[in-house]
Amino acid sequence: MKPLEEKQLSATYKYKGRIINVRLDEAQIANGNKAWREVVEHPGGVGIALEDNDGKFFMVRQYRYGISHETLEFPAGKRELGENDLLTAKREIVEETGYEGKNWIYLGEMVPTPAYDSERIGMYYAQVDKYVGQHFDEDENIILEKYSLDELVDLIMKQEIIDAKTIAMTFMVKELKNKK
Amino acid sequence: MKPLEEKQLSATYKYKGRIINVRLDEAQIANGNKAWREVVEHPGGVGIALEDNDGKFFMVRQYRYGISHETLEFPAGKRELGENDLLTAKREIVEETGYEGKNWIYLGEMVPTPAYDSERIGMYYAQVDKYVGQHFDEDENIILEKYSLDELVDLIMKQEIIDAKTIAMTFMVKELKNKK
Repeated sequence: MKPLEEKQLSATYKYKGRIINVRLDEAQIANGNKAWREVVEHPGGVGIALEDNDGKFFMVRQYRYGISHETLEFPAGKRELGENDLLTAKREIVEETGYEGKNWIYLGEMVPTPAYDSERIGMYYAQVDKYVGQHFDEDENIILEKYSLDELVDLIMKQEIIDAKTIAMTFMVKELKNKK
Repeated sequence: MKPLEEKQLSATYKYKGRIINVRLDEAQIANGNKAWREVVEHPGGVGIALEDNDGKFFMVRQYRYGISHETLEFPAGKRELGENDLLTAKREIVEETGYEGKNWIYLGEMVPTPAYDSERIGMYYAQVDKYVGQHFDEDENIILEKYSLDELVDLIMKQEIIDAKTIAMTFMVKELKNKK
């Protein structure tokens, strides 16, 4: 075993749900010990920083049930089975903003809670293309807003944006633009 | 109900575990529909950006079982019952680096996966104080490394750092320093 590795010794599903599954595994640790590891299995998803022609980014205000509070986030969505990340991003951005994107740039991948959750989020930047109309899932209830990159940084530092992928993507887009 | 609000109608525990619990709730949505919501309950924790006297930050390389891969992250730890965030941060930074911190600054709170997980992470900056010795939990196996803020930004843009709190904290610390 590599010095940091942990090997799965056993796996027991404790919950098989709609979006997530939960396992309790026993793992072999490289230092000789064994440990119990709880794992939330999640399909992961994508986030999209879509910039309009005035340098404003489309943002979604919505209620997030997990934290019992509303948030302001970049548009995002879950992967569907067999769908690659760019396809998910292109589908989700139309569903939530009504606009297609163009000049897509892959910012990279982010893991929100790697200790106990398999979720990975692919992060994209795109520029606004033609309007084709929004279409929401029936249990989606969102308000669209638009902010410049500097406004987003201010909102992060003032704690009005606290969503992890939105914080990461704001600064990564800023970093990319500074390098150009 | 407020326009975006979702109200808990029922809650059923599907798993009560060591670190997490999982609920399946039925929720009333403001648009009149009802929806099923899965929620992972997690105690949350803190992350600490500890800077030494040469402008280098203490980083932890460790295996993260949830993503079956090692990561490079700021030192972090879970809240213990009844403990406030600053106490958790002061305890964890000694456990993982061996150093006490001083001149603590609260950067704010971040939610890694607000749709389905209650976890909140308190983020702190501190400067290195006296060495008092590391002490790990028996199933912890970590390597300590140190990097400057510019090196951390490079590692993020090269995708060698993909942990959400570490990305958020790196840029938030940079933002704070730029304002000084």
